[in-house]
Amino acid sequence: MTDIKTLALQCRDAATAIASLPTQAKNALLRAMADALLADEAVILAANARDIEAAAAKGIGSAMLDRLRLDTARVQGIAAAVREVAELPDPVGQVTRAYDRPNGIHVERVRVPLGVIAMIYEARPNVTADAAALCLKAGNAVILRGGSEAIHSNTAIAAALKRALRDAGLPEAVLTLVEDLRRETILELIQLSDIIDLVIPRGGEGLIRFVAEHARVPVIKHYKGVCHQYVDAGADEDLALALLVDGKVSRPSACNALETLLVHRDIAPSFLPKAAAALRMRGVDLRVDEAGRAWIPDAAAATEEDFAAEFLDLVLAIGVVDDLDAAIAHIRRHTSDHTEVIVTRDPAHADAFVHALRSAVVMVNASSRFSDGGELGLGAEIGISTTRLHSYGPMGLEALTVERFVVRGEGQVRHPGLLGVSEGEK
Amino acid sequence: MTDIKTLALQCRDAATAIASLPTQAKNALLRAMADALLADEAVILAANARDIEAAAAKGIGSAMLDRLRLDTARVQGIAAAVREVAELPDPVGQVTRAYDRPNGIHVERVRVPLGVIAMIYEARPNVTADAAALCLKAGNAVILRGGSEAIHSNTAIAAALKRALRDAGLPEAVLTLVEDLRRETILELIQLSDIIDLVIPRGGEGLIRFVAEHARVPVIKHYKGVCHQYVDAGADEDLALALLVDGKVSRPSACNALETLLVHRDIAPSFLPKAAAALRMRGVDLRVDEAGRAWIPDAAAATEEDFAAEFLDLVLAIGVVDDLDAAIAHIRRHTSDHTEVIVTRDPAHADAFVHALRSAVVMVNASSRFSDGGELGLGAEIGISTTRLHSYGPMGLEALTVERFVVRGEGQVRHPGLLGVSEGEK
Repeated sequence: MTDIKTLALQCRDAATAIASLPTQAKNALLRAMADALLADEAVILAANARDIEAAAAKGIGSAMLDRLRLDTARVQGIAAAVREVAELPDPVGQVTRAYDRPNGIHVERVRVPLGVIAMIYEARPNVTADAAALCLKAGNAVILRGGSEAIHSNTAIAAALKRALRDAGLPEAVLTLVEDLRRETILELIQLSDIIDLVIPRGGEGLIRFVAEHARVPVIKHYKGVCHQYVDAGADEDLALALLVDGKVSRPSACNALETLLVHRDIAPSFLPKAAAALRMRGVDLRVDEAGRAWIPDAAAATEEDFAAEFLDLVLAIGVVDDLDAAIAHIRRHTSDHTEVIVTRDPAHADAFVHALRSAVVMVNASSRFSDGGELGLGAEIGISTTRLHSYGPMGLEALTVERFVVRGEGQVRHPGLLGVSEGEK
Repeated sequence: MTDIKTLALQCRDAATAIASLPTQAKNALLRAMADALLADEAVILAANARDIEAAAAKGIGSAMLDRLRLDTARVQGIAAAVREVAELPDPVGQVTRAYDRPNGIHVERVRVPLGVIAMIYEARPNVTADAAALCLKAGNAVILRGGSEAIHSNTAIAAALKRALRDAGLPEAVLTLVEDLRRETILELIQLSDIIDLVIPRGGEGLIRFVAEHARVPVIKHYKGVCHQYVDAGADEDLALALLVDGKVSRPSACNALETLLVHRDIAPSFLPKAAAALRMRGVDLRVDEAGRAWIPDAAAATEEDFAAEFLDLVLAIGVVDDLDAAIAHIRRHTSDHTEVIVTRDPAHADAFVHALRSAVVMVNASSRFSDGGELGLGAEIGISTTRLHSYGPMGLEALTVERFVVRGEGQVRHPGLLGVSEGEK
């Protein structure tokens, strides 16, 4: 098996080919990749069946099995997602600003690819195609290291994608799937700081902490989403209830699901009983602080840990606060910098909430579940960053590029006196 | 002495105070800091004299002593630089994009401070005030760890700046100077990933590599500037010569100084003798490849190391290339991703050069020495990044912020069907 450094060097050497590819050629490549995935459906499903069998033999839980499992519809979905990336605008070459300096030089800020991106992820095989499509569209070479449970599925998907690369005359190493699944190999990979420009870990907190602690390559990560919704005094209670149910129930396993509800004490008497009824009807287990239990008397007492927890399940921590400032103080103490929501009729309170909190996404009277690249108009999403650097919040194609400077002059120099007149003249 | 983690926690707790300060208050603070520096001139110069004495006793070289030395003019210069930062536009709160989604939610991308920035730097005491001014103006708290040679100067400068913070009713910990100069303390500092958002090392390659290798906090760095100038066939030779002399001679110790000249073989016979004469007249030592020595016969032979070197001195490596592609290939092999220059009359060649190279700054017919925050219109510069993430090239105030999402709705939810009609109605 080729060692990881050699693979990474081959990927970096190939990066130039994708970085300089025109938009139309990249789009054609992605469409060919989508076609190849459809053409290989049988092979991919057979490979997936081997993964499922091995996972079932290992006694892996049904939620995990479901994430791993592919069928015709899911393969079609993966291909469709790749095709959608082809339709997105190309960030590479975009001029974000252009201006002249007093000395006449013309300065442009222009987006360029990052170079080589390593994705380290867990069970879902669709990430293999999604991440490849997004990285390649943004002109980057990509190293993919998926979970061991999905190795056959990932290999079959990568084989289809690589065939499209070959057919387009591009080096296969532009898309490198790491088949050596030892943890030491990840360790070596994330220390190749002269080769890899960015590592994006996606998965459980254990994986992300492992990568963050050992990487010498820049890492963009999100540990968890402890998303808060604060219901202000005088808020529209129906609206607050709709946002609460959507935020908690529509997909509890998502990182943008609500984990904590904070309620102003003036609205607690009328709102909390309704909220508790609506949530419990949908199977939500409530953990409520002392003040809140005055209005939800039969609820379990919330601990400090409950207010720090990302339940990822039908569980909600509920607290009553004295005022907006107390809500802000609570959120500051427990925020994971992901997404916070305020429900209010008072524009000044909305502004104060937005201003006081520096989470990646702050919502006023809208569901936390909109904290998503697709929902926020990025077209697609490679992850959600809670790292307050480079990209903060949902990351789309643009986040896989960086702005550099292109300067055009007519011979301007910084110290015009340096060259003697006799030399300067013809 | 308070341990570094406690100091860093105090700084982080204070960060909220500066993050939410209105622009006018931040500007007033910076002007008061400039005044405090001027008022403390005698104290600062006395402290500096102690540093100079200790450095001289240690036998430190004259170039280093000059970087360390302050006088009235330099203190005034430091104060003036702080005052200039007050005049710059405030990036915090800038709305970079705003749009509505089909469901009616309004999305804004808004700049927020990064949080807590640690600067680790070497001899120049002016960095203490410069870095503090830039970080604070962008709403960040800052931890400063300067070189041991400048400890008395840095302490005196920080004392003046902190007086202005106190007078403005702000927590002093917003600006934290680390006085514990052990290397283990740097090590501990750069691993405080839950407290510090960014580390910027500025200094020699040894310091930067040390920080990059041990940090668990994101690092933005530049190792070195191996800047190239390529003179194309048919280029205006006088223009090429003016850029060459400016790039190599105007400040050889700067990272944006030229280190390598590449010349198309067709223009070498006429250009190289002129270039060699002009450079040698200014004391530049030339290291020339075999093809080039046909036209500069008495020059030393360039080694492969010469073409990788950042001389930071009056030394230049010179090579002759067959064509534009060969120049690009040479630069790709040796680039430090800092700054590259093409001198050409051919717009297609200029575009090909810009397109093929992904260095942070690419110049067409302009001096490499414009690769500087002030010269490129950023107002001031906290460093030059060769990390292809977050900020690439000269970094101004904007690079000390990040864009986040602010969303305003009227109760939009992602799954409108979830809440029953009977519950949703009043």
